[in-house]
Amino acid sequence: MRRIVFVSAAVVALAGVVVYTASASGQAYGEAAPISGVKIPPGYRDWRLISVAHEEGNLNDLRAILGNDVAIKASREGKLPFPDGTIIARLAWNYDPLEESSKAFGHLQSFVAGSPKNGVQFMVKDSSKYASTGGWGFAQFDDGKAADAAMQNTCFPCHSTVKARDFVFNRYAP
Amino acid sequence: MRRIVFVSAAVVALAGVVVYTASASGQAYGEAAPISGVKIPPGYRDWRLISVAHEEGNLNDLRAILGNDVAIKASREGKLPFPDGTIIARLAWNYDPLEESSKAFGHLQSFVAGSPKNGVQFMVKDSSKYASTGGWGFAQFDDGKAADAAMQNTCFPCHSTVKARDFVFNRYAP
Repeated sequence: MRRIVFVSAAVVALAGVVVYTASASGQAYGEAAPISGVKIPPGYRDWRLISVAHEEGNLNDLRAILGNDVAIKASREGKLPFPDGTIIARLAWNYDPLEESSKAFGHLQSFVAGSPKNGVQFMVKDSSKYASTGGWGFAQFDDGKAADAAMQNTCFPCHSTVKARDFVFNRYAP
Repeated sequence: MRRIVFVSAAVVALAGVVVYTASASGQAYGEAAPISGVKIPPGYRDWRLISVAHEEGNLNDLRAILGNDVAIKASREGKLPFPDGTIIARLAWNYDPLEESSKAFGHLQSFVAGSPKNGVQFMVKDSSKYASTGGWGFAQFDDGKAADAAMQNTCFPCHSTVKARDFVFNRYAP
């Protein structure tokens, strides 16, 4: 009960800021990604943390990997392959130096998450529906708008590098 | 009900790995940190994400800032000061290059969370109990053991750099 009340409060507080709105039915919403048909899962920003990362080079971001309950359970158990129903979310932000930290330490010390960057990506496990791409449906949304097919066609070839880990780069950070 | 079942399953799966165990009563447990008396809050690894960061230099880690429900609500609203009852958790891990990603990109590209590093830290807001340190009680635990008073006495002076932000460095990453 407490949780339901809180979600409502958060939605009010964030109206106009977040790119998603809570769905009482728990259904996905918004436009579907090409190829996979994946939509943005409601409430994904409230999911628990799997791990964090920093990407160098052109990506140049800080990122967090969140998972739905199925993903968290499987990640903690470390069992592969991930079961159907797994959804993994990858959020990313600008890699920003933190001015206050530089003052505290006397030198550049900390990089923190700035504005959202490089879209929000999802991997949805459905071993029959997505059999041709390792059982995973891929999607990227930029400001809530699905990336085009050309962009999304780059997901599976890259993730094929980690086929031995069921196409998932991240590992659970304890 | 589903949530309770899941937590039990996770505890079984992670027995001997995690530094905390779920508490049915929701009470803090383990030894108390010196000065603040803060104990490790049960289930903190299940809290929602506030933000992520990378620390350079001697710290050299990737970190995540998680918050209890009070902290998440306050962080999203962006209102200061944080209300009593706020608990902010700072987790950190080794800053590890990801070999699989280097293969996929053809060059060093990704740094990911490795083994836990630099302890787990908490800030607990209680404006009367911790009036002498900005209303915050500080604590650090290394493998579940509280850091000594000398270590914990370094927290408040550093966080005083961001007194204007109620002594909190992090900002909510949308």
